[in-house]
Amino acid sequence: MGKNFSDSFLSRECVIRMVSGRFYLSCLLLGSLGSMCILFTIYWMQYWRGGFAWNGSIYMFNWHPVLMVAGMVVFYGGASLVYRLPQSWVGPKLPWKLLHAALHLMAFVLTVVGLVAVFTFHNHGRIANLYSLHSWLGITTVFLFACQWFLGFAVFLLPWASMWLRSLLKPIHVFFGAAILSLSIASVISGINEKLFFSLKNTTRPYHSLPSEAVFANSTGMLVVAFGLLVLYILLASSWKRPEPGILTDRQPLLHDGQ
Amino acid sequence: MGKNFSDSFLSRECVIRMVSGRFYLSCLLLGSLGSMCILFTIYWMQYWRGGFAWNGSIYMFNWHPVLMVAGMVVFYGGASLVYRLPQSWVGPKLPWKLLHAALHLMAFVLTVVGLVAVFTFHNHGRIANLYSLHSWLGITTVFLFACQWFLGFAVFLLPWASMWLRSLLKPIHVFFGAAILSLSIASVISGINEKLFFSLKNTTRPYHSLPSEAVFANSTGMLVVAFGLLVLYILLASSWKRPEPGILTDRQPLLHDGQ
Repeated sequence: MGKNFSDSFLSRECVIRMVSGRFYLSCLLLGSLGSMCILFTIYWMQYWRGGFAWNGSIYMFNWHPVLMVAGMVVFYGGASLVYRLPQSWVGPKLPWKLLHAALHLMAFVLTVVGLVAVFTFHNHGRIANLYSLHSWLGITTVFLFACQWFLGFAVFLLPWASMWLRSLLKPIHVFFGAAILSLSIASVISGINEKLFFSLKNTTRPYHSLPSEAVFANSTGMLVVAFGLLVLYILLASSWKRPEPGILTDRQPLLHDGQ
Repeated sequence: MGKNFSDSFLSRECVIRMVSGRFYLSCLLLGSLGSMCILFTIYWMQYWRGGFAWNGSIYMFNWHPVLMVAGMVVFYGGASLVYRLPQSWVGPKLPWKLLHAALHLMAFVLTVVGLVAVFTFHNHGRIANLYSLHSWLGITTVFLFACQWFLGFAVFLLPWASMWLRSLLKPIHVFFGAAILSLSIASVISGINEKLFFSLKNTTRPYHSLPSEAVFANSTGMLVVAFGLLVLYILLASSWKRPEPGILTDRQPLLHDGQ
């Protein structure tokens, strides 16, 4: 038994070391893509749209694309991948659950500030809220994200939920995690498209003549798509999934662990 | 051995019968949602946008949203779910592979005709092609769909590919199947949004005052999202997956079967 345990432990360590290299290479690509998504959106708003302010003006609106790309796509995507870290495969699951919830909470806070930016700008300039399909889909996505976070916190972190309920809800939680990211990408794409039609409607450099701003912002949108697809690939299709650790370690509610 | 085989066969049949009911209920919901997506898009184009023609005019453009929703979302989504049909779980896989490929080919043909409609309208009216982010993402999605179909045909239907290559490419094929549907939804959402900003820009009924056309078309977009999410749920998260039938039945290339 002792030898078997030691063998199994060694082979598990070996497997983890083997896949770690490829995983961190993907993380490097993911980190670069994610940083580029945020930096490109900042650059677009700063260089072509006049920069940032927090005063109800169009410069306040400029926080909206930056914070939604950062919150709903990049931070959300990174937070989703916590259980794909090879270190999370062994040992207690609780610290990783806390990290997963905390990173998603950061993503949610960025998202809410991004919404405050656009609603304040609209209300200040007497522009209607929530009329475009972009806004309908975007607000639905944020609502689903809020439900997902609170349900995840209540069921997977707090101690009351039974093992049966957790097993029932886990595939739904994982599915909606990926679905919300897909809807975020659709919201971001329609948002960038809409913003470019608003901004580039004058006759000197219309959108259809593809001025440098249009090429840059379209490319930023395609980068967001590439980032989202890479996250979904690592999340759904890769072999970097945490092995199911059994009932005891799988059930580590917040208030029972380490107390 | 005979009894085990018979038991295992019976229990398999029993499981199939048990899940069939829920599956067909989901199919009914999926069929209703899919039909509504196509019918709502036709109604939008017919009632508010003047109907259809094939003469390079704006009425030719009206085929574009209908055919893209039908091809890239509804037919594509239905074609993706062939292996979730409980009947496909037992017996030879080849007829289901052929059905999967044929339905996707129909989806691709509808998509190509939808592209011809918009390119012809643009060229006829000297409007630039492929400048918006909607068009960049849309054409990338159609290109990925074409690659996916031809690679799937070459590797999973033609007889030359080794078992090793098929096993290597299957998770990638499944992932890109779902990814292309997600990108199609993002393309459709940005397309409906763009079309509404183009069409509802006059002062009597602007988009931001949410006239009935805007509410109807926005709702059509949200229906497309609901349909896409249901397909992805059945595809990725449900328990309606075909059990792996082993090496012999898994390898049934077109030119070796039944000849």
